[in-house]
Amino acid sequence: MSTSVKKKPGTDLEIAQSADLRHVRDVASSVGIPEDSLEMYGKYKAKLPLDLIDEKKVAQSNLILVTAMTPTPAGEGKTTTSIGLTEGLNRIGKLTTVVLREPSLGPVFGMKGGAAGGGYSQVVPMEDINLHFTGDFAAIEKANNLLAAMIDNNIQSAKNNLGIDPRTVEWKRVMDMNDRSLRNIVSGMGGKAGGMMRETGFNITAASEIMAILCLARNMDDLKAKIGNIYIGDTYQGEAVFARDIKAEGAMAVLLKDAIKPNLVQTLEGNPAILHGGPFANIAQGTNSVIATKMGMSLSDYVVTEAGFGADLGAEKFLNIKCGYSGLSPKTIVVVATIRALKYHGGQPLAELKEPDTVSLSKGLLNLEKHLENTKTYGVPAVVAINKFISDTDEEISLVKKRCEALGIRVALCEGWEHGGEGTRELAEQVVASVESFKGKYSPVYDWNWGVKEKIEAVARKIYGARDVEFLPKAKQNLKKIERIGLNDKPICIAKTQNSFSDDPKWLGRPENFTLTVREIEIAAGAGFCIPITGNMLRMPGLPALPAAEGMDIDNNGKITGLS
Amino acid sequence: MSTSVKKKPGTDLEIAQSADLRHVRDVASSVGIPEDSLEMYGKYKAKLPLDLIDEKKVAQSNLILVTAMTPTPAGEGKTTTSIGLTEGLNRIGKLTTVVLREPSLGPVFGMKGGAAGGGYSQVVPMEDINLHFTGDFAAIEKANNLLAAMIDNNIQSAKNNLGIDPRTVEWKRVMDMNDRSLRNIVSGMGGKAGGMMRETGFNITAASEIMAILCLARNMDDLKAKIGNIYIGDTYQGEAVFARDIKAEGAMAVLLKDAIKPNLVQTLEGNPAILHGGPFANIAQGTNSVIATKMGMSLSDYVVTEAGFGADLGAEKFLNIKCGYSGLSPKTIVVVATIRALKYHGGQPLAELKEPDTVSLSKGLLNLEKHLENTKTYGVPAVVAINKFISDTDEEISLVKKRCEALGIRVALCEGWEHGGEGTRELAEQVVASVESFKGKYSPVYDWNWGVKEKIEAVARKIYGARDVEFLPKAKQNLKKIERIGLNDKPICIAKTQNSFSDDPKWLGRPENFTLTVREIEIAAGAGFCIPITGNMLRMPGLPALPAAEGMDIDNNGKITGLS
Repeated sequence: MSTSVKKKPGTDLEIAQSADLRHVRDVASSVGIPEDSLEMYGKYKAKLPLDLIDEKKVAQSNLILVTAMTPTPAGEGKTTTSIGLTEGLNRIGKLTTVVLREPSLGPVFGMKGGAAGGGYSQVVPMEDINLHFTGDFAAIEKANNLLAAMIDNNIQSAKNNLGIDPRTVEWKRVMDMNDRSLRNIVSGMGGKAGGMMRETGFNITAASEIMAILCLARNMDDLKAKIGNIYIGDTYQGEAVFARDIKAEGAMAVLLKDAIKPNLVQTLEGNPAILHGGPFANIAQGTNSVIATKMGMSLSDYVVTEAGFGADLGAEKFLNIKCGYSGLSPKTIVVVATIRALKYHGGQPLAELKEPDTVSLSKGLLNLEKHLENTKTYGVPAVVAINKFISDTDEEISLVKKRCEALGIRVALCEGWEHGGEGTRELAEQVVASVESFKGKYSPVYDWNWGVKEKIEAVARKIYGARDVEFLPKAKQNLKKIERIGLNDKPICIAKTQNSFSDDPKWLGRPENFTLTVREIEIAAGAGFCIPITGNMLRMPGLPALPAAEGMDIDNNGKITGLS
Repeated sequence: MSTSVKKKPGTDLEIAQSADLRHVRDVASSVGIPEDSLEMYGKYKAKLPLDLIDEKKVAQSNLILVTAMTPTPAGEGKTTTSIGLTEGLNRIGKLTTVVLREPSLGPVFGMKGGAAGGGYSQVVPMEDINLHFTGDFAAIEKANNLLAAMIDNNIQSAKNNLGIDPRTVEWKRVMDMNDRSLRNIVSGMGGKAGGMMRETGFNITAASEIMAILCLARNMDDLKAKIGNIYIGDTYQGEAVFARDIKAEGAMAVLLKDAIKPNLVQTLEGNPAILHGGPFANIAQGTNSVIATKMGMSLSDYVVTEAGFGADLGAEKFLNIKCGYSGLSPKTIVVVATIRALKYHGGQPLAELKEPDTVSLSKGLLNLEKHLENTKTYGVPAVVAINKFISDTDEEISLVKKRCEALGIRVALCEGWEHGGEGTRELAEQVVASVESFKGKYSPVYDWNWGVKEKIEAVARKIYGARDVEFLPKAKQNLKKIERIGLNDKPICIAKTQNSFSDDPKWLGRPENFTLTVREIEIAAGAGFCIPITGNMLRMPGLPALPAAEGMDIDNNGKITGLS
């Protein structure tokens, strides 16, 4: 995501293209990986074998989670801050790897653009990372769609037929493309040879349950077991059917033979970066794979990682789902804040955020404060990173710093976008001090053994600040199904707007005394969580009237322009 | 394709997995490519930069086209013969590269299996080649589907709208999966936000026009120009709309930045193999890319390549389309025949082909003879390769050899499946003798400047042996459209069954005095040919009742089983 309001020293692509990259074998060697262990994809990308994961080293390494206050529509620069902080930590002598999600291809051609950081805090090679990369998304897409083809084929064939009721099939196909016309389709037309006609649709690949599964799996056996547990739909007799019932998990895992391996690239300053997986942050856990995080921790003393959306979604899921499944625990939570977002939450209109406004800023700090209270609930120390924009005034910055200091929270300016690692030394020092002060482990918000309703209520009250939770009739029905399928003891993954603590995207600041409405509860039996839905979740974006694709080009020498 | 009637010395996968592979840098070095020019994808695959193509060397190298008599439903082993012949040529001291299509992923999970040769004539690493490989198909799929999304987005948006009539859009989406339920769909449902509702469907990726284009392009600029020429549909005013009109070609080419580069792997005996592209052999040219063929010819003295289906389709299109566009010309055409197929064309039932039957064999030779007459029409010397099966008797083999000798055609047994290069020395010697005897260039069957009807009639009469050609009303309409769009001077790519010289798949042997019926003529304005359709072309396969996928597995060490 590009923080485009700053005066740019060139586009992200131009900065990335002018970088002098290290050969990936040298990046690998800097964290002790011999060349023979690498599966190189060209000179600047490599897949890492899972046997480099060393649980002893994982236990000794320091995990730092980067999350954010409630964002403006443009986002507050978590990826840029994560990369910048990694440069800074390496500059002050801490061997650090940044571990991030891989970007989704679809949005690159729409409005949002790529997702490899911005300015002088990027991971490179930028074009490759944003375009196909090492094929992980394509493999996930294929595994997802093989299951879909096998389901429809089972419905079609007289032999081998499990009696799946086509009206109950919830498994959708996926495509990594912003293509609204595929959201809702009728498939299986053209008579008997063309399959059984039914309503279905496509999601974008990042929304596939296979993506969520890949990012929670420990190894290939675990991946296969989780895939086998995917809930497909019901038989005409009302019995649940799983992927294992149509013997799909072996072939699907075969398709993921390389996608399970994390990808090594580098930051602009040549430090190691591992990118792996990219699940949605609303209907899924929104953070890179357990395998990648453990890989980074096996290779370096510090790992900086990131979770999608604000801390109410990203940090909560990171801790209660990812850490719950993997045994990981961050030593510090970096909460990214911007003067812009703070003023926005204090009532300054979006179009006027460049104007100084300490009144709005003061009010908006209530949003940040709630996120910081939450980090205390988790029992993990927080550091506030003020991601600096050119429009920020000294007075505004000072006001935020003072408030944080009054709360006893470490705070630092982050100027990674403009200055790379030189702009994040202060932040890096604060993070190291915070990490060294903490020897404990995070406290979960709920016990997985509680009832699903209790778990939802715990997150809504303790993290969102809701007064109570209303379950609509469909959600109540879903609770029975969850019980029937035996998913009561799984963590929950609440799908909620990222623009507010509440389920109303317009309610900025620090909402209080609200009711969270749970419309329905979806099942991700393979990934191992239930998904309470509190709003309309768009899982297949569309292209804007003027798609970014129209401005892209490549010349006869392979030089790309128009990518952002 | 595996020639499964022989006694197997292990499955293809087991043979491939037990092979001792050379590092791809050593394979590259054997044909003079420095390591620094390689883009490695792991240790055994690499992409080759286009600047290794040297037109002077291309002009000096010897191109051998492997094609076949009219096949049985199981196929006659062209790929296996091509690989075996390459091993044999290298054994007799000729530096030879085999240049082939990449396999399609979809059929791997259905019935057909992979496509990397068979027995002791395979290209390796077999699992990687059959599964994702270096991502070319995925990239082609994305480029195809980006255009589809941009078309529907243009129809959706009020801004920028070209007035495309959704009822005329012929561009389909693609997916490399055997998924019959996607053949015919209604997209754009769910109200205004979900796009304009219309009938459409998915083809398998190998059937995408992007695939045909990639395989005819000379370089990135040419690729982009061809993509821009893709015909999309018409406006409400009846004007043709092309991909360039919605400014799609730049972004689509960006998606193909790596897919345009050919892939280097190796044969089981460690000789260089280049795999690139994989267009259908009915609605497209059915052979690997011009870039790959020229790359092979730049690197070695001999190149063995292959064209899909029998010689009536594969060789004809290879010469009149691929050679016509690229200036290439084969020095010898190897026609693969099997005793099985010869008996089948002489009337022996499919289930009895293991039984000796010289009567059917004699009759069936008429099919082979017609193919050999055709090679004379092209003016290129032929060598018949008898791809040996265990059920073949000495008497049968001797009968075929005698008939070929009587016709003045070189002939040799090919035992590459069982013995690798040791089993193809005789064939290799014959091929070298043939190549050394020929200094000319092929003669095209038609002049591109003839009318479309005349071009179709020329192929039908001279190559298929038809008496005349009937054009159904839709085909006549299409002729007018071709004229209107200005595609009169393009070559033609007839879509016809591979099971007969005629358009009736049941008419075996050497059909005569038949009428070829052209139902319609499609347009591949980007690839640069028209496609007269003479039958029902299935462009999206389905899975069988017991898909191969059900028997596949991968263990925690990444070892794959059940792939064929």
